[in-house]
Amino acid sequence: MRVTDLIRRKRDGGELTPDEIASLIRAYTRDEVPDYQISAWLMAILWRGMTRAEIAALTDAMLHSGEVLDFSDLPGRKVDKHSTGGVGDKTSLVVAPVAAAGGLRVPMISGRGLGHTGGTLDKLQSIPGFSVDLSLKEFHRVLGVCGCAMIGQTAEIAPADKKLYALRDVTGTVESPALICSSIMSKKLAEGIDALVLDVKVGSGAFMKREEDAANLADLLVETGTRMGKRVVALITDMDQPLGRAVGNALEVIEVLEVLDGRGPADLRDLCLELAAWMFLLGGSAASVAEGKSLAAEQIASGRAKEKFREIVRLQGGDSAVVDAPERLPRARHTFDVPSGGQGYVIATECEQFGTACVALGGGRAKKEDTIDPAVGLTVHRKVGDPVRRGETLCTLHYNDADRLDEARQLVETAYRFAPEPPSPRPLVRRVLGA
Amino acid sequence: MRVTDLIRRKRDGGELTPDEIASLIRAYTRDEVPDYQISAWLMAILWRGMTRAEIAALTDAMLHSGEVLDFSDLPGRKVDKHSTGGVGDKTSLVVAPVAAAGGLRVPMISGRGLGHTGGTLDKLQSIPGFSVDLSLKEFHRVLGVCGCAMIGQTAEIAPADKKLYALRDVTGTVESPALICSSIMSKKLAEGIDALVLDVKVGSGAFMKREEDAANLADLLVETGTRMGKRVVALITDMDQPLGRAVGNALEVIEVLEVLDGRGPADLRDLCLELAAWMFLLGGSAASVAEGKSLAAEQIASGRAKEKFREIVRLQGGDSAVVDAPERLPRARHTFDVPSGGQGYVIATECEQFGTACVALGGGRAKKEDTIDPAVGLTVHRKVGDPVRRGETLCTLHYNDADRLDEARQLVETAYRFAPEPPSPRPLVRRVLGA
Repeated sequence: MRVTDLIRRKRDGGELTPDEIASLIRAYTRDEVPDYQISAWLMAILWRGMTRAEIAALTDAMLHSGEVLDFSDLPGRKVDKHSTGGVGDKTSLVVAPVAAAGGLRVPMISGRGLGHTGGTLDKLQSIPGFSVDLSLKEFHRVLGVCGCAMIGQTAEIAPADKKLYALRDVTGTVESPALICSSIMSKKLAEGIDALVLDVKVGSGAFMKREEDAANLADLLVETGTRMGKRVVALITDMDQPLGRAVGNALEVIEVLEVLDGRGPADLRDLCLELAAWMFLLGGSAASVAEGKSLAAEQIASGRAKEKFREIVRLQGGDSAVVDAPERLPRARHTFDVPSGGQGYVIATECEQFGTACVALGGGRAKKEDTIDPAVGLTVHRKVGDPVRRGETLCTLHYNDADRLDEARQLVETAYRFAPEPPSPRPLVRRVLGA
Repeated sequence: MRVTDLIRRKRDGGELTPDEIASLIRAYTRDEVPDYQISAWLMAILWRGMTRAEIAALTDAMLHSGEVLDFSDLPGRKVDKHSTGGVGDKTSLVVAPVAAAGGLRVPMISGRGLGHTGGTLDKLQSIPGFSVDLSLKEFHRVLGVCGCAMIGQTAEIAPADKKLYALRDVTGTVESPALICSSIMSKKLAEGIDALVLDVKVGSGAFMKREEDAANLADLLVETGTRMGKRVVALITDMDQPLGRAVGNALEVIEVLEVLDGRGPADLRDLCLELAAWMFLLGGSAASVAEGKSLAAEQIASGRAKEKFREIVRLQGGDSAVVDAPERLPRARHTFDVPSGGQGYVIATECEQFGTACVALGGGRAKKEDTIDPAVGLTVHRKVGDPVRRGETLCTLHYNDADRLDEARQLVETAYRFAPEPPSPRPLVRRVLGA
């Protein structure tokens, strides 16, 4: 294999064979191919794209660069859910215990927040003591005991993806749908799951701003997973405004507890039920989405989902008392109410700005190395379709450092668009692919 | 400066400012930016191209990454000639002594052969003892004494180009016109010249196969040089067949000596006179190309050019007795005459195959580290337009290693195209830009 020839072929719009891709990824994982050749290859992929067969081969090569988990000794279908990332997207923390309470096993390997989007690991770590760094053995044990475990990517899982992801981040090669797809699917398929529900976010708060880009990615994800023998569906869901009202790690955990209590914002609750319903359907626990939704709602109404959440927190070393006493979570010292400069109806928001405001307050990372403040964030009082008068509070900012307030405030103030008439309502779930 | 932002801007088709390019190249030369970011940037350039202003900025940044020579203490105009590379292209060895004999100063920094093309340094080094590794001080001295000196790129000259060139070679990013242009011009402008004559090769033996690509590169080269205050012309010349009859290092030196004796193949002689004529014109020694040609022819007819060549060889440590006794040059132990499988007229050749045949015999490099055999090569007996009968000799192969013969023979046999009628003659010089 001459690496330069493979780069040149892709550069010229040609196709690589599965063997070539496998050899290249194997050699790269072993540090036998230098980063500078791979980054040129990645840029050529971003330019020329990849065929479906190439994406499948790349996913497979990254998947097999490390350990592929096997939970076949544990009864029940293993089903996971994955989101491409948004603002206020805390559905994982709801659907994982709901699905586990309903009899599925959910071996969830999640990521951290980067850029304006939040990350499941950061949210979980706002719970005092919660450990996301379980060994694979502990992961297996927790999954066996309570049906759900939630950790971060370990060194054993898809190490090629880890190397490639870090390289993409610093070489302007993140945005390729082919690379995004293979990165997501290699990690998810390493979880040893039978089925996967994908939540592909679209809108001003998502990485994909346009529905056709989201649909393209969703299609790639579904096909790649299906080629590898998994049941996969992708829901394309709205990220033109934050999901629910809370943005910020501890604030979002509080909102999760509200939903698990049968309360919480309608949009968040609806999406959680929809996602859990699809998990039940793919996992064989329900015969239809409607049946799956009932099953999911039942887990919440009965309190079983909340009990499951408490169990997960306890088994992963966290303070399970927070489940009944959310005030034990970190709380910011100050709040500031952002008044509305306009009036009428909220017709749209620049959703990314809410996420960036949270980062500005210290609740997210500008660079990988940054530490985050779990207590800070936003409560969004006015959402799309809501009437608002001048001076009414749009958002409450929760902050610890007054120096950081101004930037966040400005971002929130300028995120809203008003008009005299309300907008026509838009569905939260735009499309489902692979069903 | 965030390097990732610069990569992303170029990736998205945007333009970088001169300051941004200068900072990036400065940091890269100092090893403050890693290769893996630069290779992604290079691939983005190959994809999106560069504006004229960007090319000028990149050339300037690479030029000033090292020493810019200054020969202003030496009388006479400093003029150089540069070829983009071909098969059997030994014109530098003729035009440098001709121009110097006519009163110009020729500070020539040349390259080695790579791929199917030959390199001036390799040809010179087939002369026993000839050193191309002069220090810049010795370079200055030889130039002062005899009006011409011929060396390889030193560590002091355009180190950024050296790093970038090596990186491009292994990352599939050689072919970008913008990168080719800035690489050539940064080295040539570092020579401290007043004027430059460019020989941009086009055809099956050149890097540019299509005339429009060659014209585009020529145009970039001329504009970039002119922007930087130099007089520059570019001749687009034919490389659809080897130039002259000799391909291979020592064989080409012998042909050079023939031309300097007033003999040699007509195409080679004509192109040398044309190139030297332009050098005289740009250097102010002639008022027109026609006058320049007469001046060049006079240097040969009078024997002054040959004397100059002898002087260069002697001053650079070579065996100057070869000038009158070419048999002192390395000579292959065996020859093989390749018979024609077809007949009629030669209407075209796959010129690259002659170069590759020479490499196959050991006369060029497949990899940078390869050592070359100066004695081997080809004598081309039948060229485009020549009549040929089946069984007549097309080429003579000069070889030392019988194991290498078959590949070379096959390459030469399949390089020829025959037809019953002769082709219409095509000019050697297709166009001149910048005149």
